[in-house]
Amino acid sequence: MTGYYHHDAPFLLESGEKLSELVIAYHTYGTLNQDRSNVVWVCHALTANSDVADWWPHTVESGCFLDPDRWFVVCANIIGSCYGTTGPLSENPATGEPYYSDFPLVTIRDIANAHCLLASHLGIGRIHALTGSSVGGFQALEWIAAEPERFDKLILIATDAKASPWTIAIDETQRMAIEADRTFGGKSPDAGMAGMAAARGIGLLTYRGGNGYNLTQCDAAGFNPVSDIHRACTYQRYQGEKLCRRFNAYSYVSILNSFDTHDIGRGRGGVAAALAGVTADSMVIGLSSDIIFTPAEMKELSAMLPRSVYREIDSAFGHDGFLVEHEQLNNILKPFIEG
Amino acid sequence: MTGYYHHDAPFLLESGEKLSELVIAYHTYGTLNQDRSNVVWVCHALTANSDVADWWPHTVESGCFLDPDRWFVVCANIIGSCYGTTGPLSENPATGEPYYSDFPLVTIRDIANAHCLLASHLGIGRIHALTGSSVGGFQALEWIAAEPERFDKLILIATDAKASPWTIAIDETQRMAIEADRTFGGKSPDAGMAGMAAARGIGLLTYRGGNGYNLTQCDAAGFNPVSDIHRACTYQRYQGEKLCRRFNAYSYVSILNSFDTHDIGRGRGGVAAALAGVTADSMVIGLSSDIIFTPAEMKELSAMLPRSVYREIDSAFGHDGFLVEHEQLNNILKPFIEG
Repeated sequence: MTGYYHHDAPFLLESGEKLSELVIAYHTYGTLNQDRSNVVWVCHALTANSDVADWWPHTVESGCFLDPDRWFVVCANIIGSCYGTTGPLSENPATGEPYYSDFPLVTIRDIANAHCLLASHLGIGRIHALTGSSVGGFQALEWIAAEPERFDKLILIATDAKASPWTIAIDETQRMAIEADRTFGGKSPDAGMAGMAAARGIGLLTYRGGNGYNLTQCDAAGFNPVSDIHRACTYQRYQGEKLCRRFNAYSYVSILNSFDTHDIGRGRGGVAAALAGVTADSMVIGLSSDIIFTPAEMKELSAMLPRSVYREIDSAFGHDGFLVEHEQLNNILKPFIEG
Repeated sequence: MTGYYHHDAPFLLESGEKLSELVIAYHTYGTLNQDRSNVVWVCHALTANSDVADWWPHTVESGCFLDPDRWFVVCANIIGSCYGTTGPLSENPATGEPYYSDFPLVTIRDIANAHCLLASHLGIGRIHALTGSSVGGFQALEWIAAEPERFDKLILIATDAKASPWTIAIDETQRMAIEADRTFGGKSPDAGMAGMAAARGIGLLTYRGGNGYNLTQCDAAGFNPVSDIHRACTYQRYQGEKLCRRFNAYSYVSILNSFDTHDIGRGRGGVAAALAGVTADSMVIGLSSDIIFTPAEMKELSAMLPRSVYREIDSAFGHDGFLVEHEQLNNILKPFIEG
C-alpha cells in the first residue's frame, strides 16, 4: 500500500531552520496484526525509495525475511529525496517555487524524527524489528538511539554509527563533480545532470569495488583498446544516464549532505555511549568485499552494541552485495527476525 | 640535468595517426659511466614529470636505491603530459594553435617507443634497471616486452600488465567528471578545470583508500557536522585546486586515455606469453592496502614473470604508499638493484 502523511505543523530541523510543510511518502506491505506486534520498519538508502519490494529483490516475499504474510513492513521515503516526500523539488511555500538549492540542510536525526512522526500517524507503538543498510542503517541507528525502548530487534547491514572521513571524502568528491556541471544551481529539475551522472559513477566505484568490476566488466576476446570502447566505460555511462532518468541533482546533493551529518554520538556523549544504550537484540551484517563499510568496521560496530551478533555475507559485489546476496541475507535474517 | 630531445621526423602512433613533431623533456641524475653500464630508467605515473627527485622523495639521494653517485638515472616526461614533452597544449603544426581536444590517442606502447628513441639519442644501449609504478609500470612492461634483451633488471611497483575493468571504470568516471564541466572542449588551457578538480578527487579516493582517509582526515573533537566543514571535504577541494595550478584537463584526459589502452599482450599472443619473454631479473612490489593494484594481483603478475620475486610493502596509505614508504622501498630495492 502506498500512502502520504501530511504533517500539518512546521517541522523543525536540527539546524534551527524549519520546513513549513512536510509530506512523507511511504509504502506498507502486509497487515498490522491486532496487537500491533508485527511491525518491521525498513530505512532506505541514498537513491532508493519507499517501495522496498522494488529495490530490494527477494526480501518482501512469502518465505523471505520481510514476508508480508507475517509482517507489517513499513518504509518511508526520506526527506530530501524525490519519491513523494518533501525535497528540493517540492514547492517552497515562501516563494511558491521549488526549493532547488535553497532546500535546507536535513540531518539523519531529522530524518529519524520524521520516521517517528509517521509511526505515530500509522498508530504504531512498539516496533518488532528495525533495519537499514548503508545510509538506511544511519537512520535506524539514529532512531534507536533516540527511542531505545521502542524496538525489539535491530538489523544493521553495511553501515556505521558515524560517517567516516573516507565516506565523507567520497561524498565531497561527488558534490565536486555535480558542481563542476555549471548548470547545477539553475532553477530547473534538469540542472546538474551531467555532474550527477559522474557522481553516480563515483558512487558505483565504491559500491562495487575492484572485484565487482573485474568479474562483470571484462572486454570480449579480440577487443582492441585503440579502436573499441571498453565495456567498463559503457557501463559507467549507462548507469549515470539511468540515474538521471529517475533522480535529480538537488535531491542527490541533499541526501549526500544528510549523510555527512551522521554521528549518533552527537549530544549523547559519543558513539560508544549512544550504542551502549541500545537494548534491542541486534544483528550486524558485514559484506566481505565492501570497501565503504568494511567487515572490520562492522565487527567493531557489533562489539559496541550490548546484545549483538556479527554475521558476514560472502560476496564479490562489494557494498552492493546487500542488494545481490538475498539468499544469504534471508538465511541469516529470517531466523533472527522470527526468533 | 634537464634536457629536451627534438625528434626530427614524424612520430607514428599505434592508431595510425602521427605527431609531425615530437619533443621529449627529460631529467638525468648522476653520470653515465665509461662502459655505460649504470643506467637506471624510471617511468613516471599520471600527473608526475621527469624530475624524479621532486615527486619521489628520498629515492634519488646518496645511499638510496637511485643513488646518483652510483647510477645514471633517466626519466622522460610522457607524451600527452604538460611538463615539456609534446602534449595537447603543444602547437599543432597543422593549425598553428594548440591541439587541445584534437590531440591524438597515444597508447602506452607509443610512450614506450618514445622512451626508446630518447635512449638512442642519449647513447644508451643496455639498461641496468627499468622501473615504474602505476602507469609508470605500464610503460616499463611495454618497453621490456618490446626489447627484453635490453634490460638486466625490472622493478614493478603497484602496476599491471593490462588495464583492468576496475581501473578503466575509475578513469571513465574521471572523464565523466571533466566532461560534466562544459568549459572542457573550449580552446583554452584553463578549460575543464572544475571537472579536473573533481577527477583528481576521484583519483585520490582510489590512491588513498579508506585507511588513508580515516587515519589522516578525522575531524577535531567538538566538531559539529551541522555547522562546520569536515576536514575530508577541505582536503578533497584543496587537492583538486592544487592540481589545477600545475596541470591541465586536456593532458589529464590524454593520459587517462593512454592508460586504458594498456595491454602488453596485444599482438603478442596475450599477457602470459608477453610476460614469459621477459628475461630480466624482476622484482614485483605490492602495497598492502592498495585497492587499485591489489597485493593479490601483484603476486599473480610476479608469478607470470620467469625470474621474479614478490615483495610487499606494509602501508596504510593505499596506492600512494609507493610515494610515502621510501624507507621500506629503499631497504628492498637497494640490494636488488646493486646485487
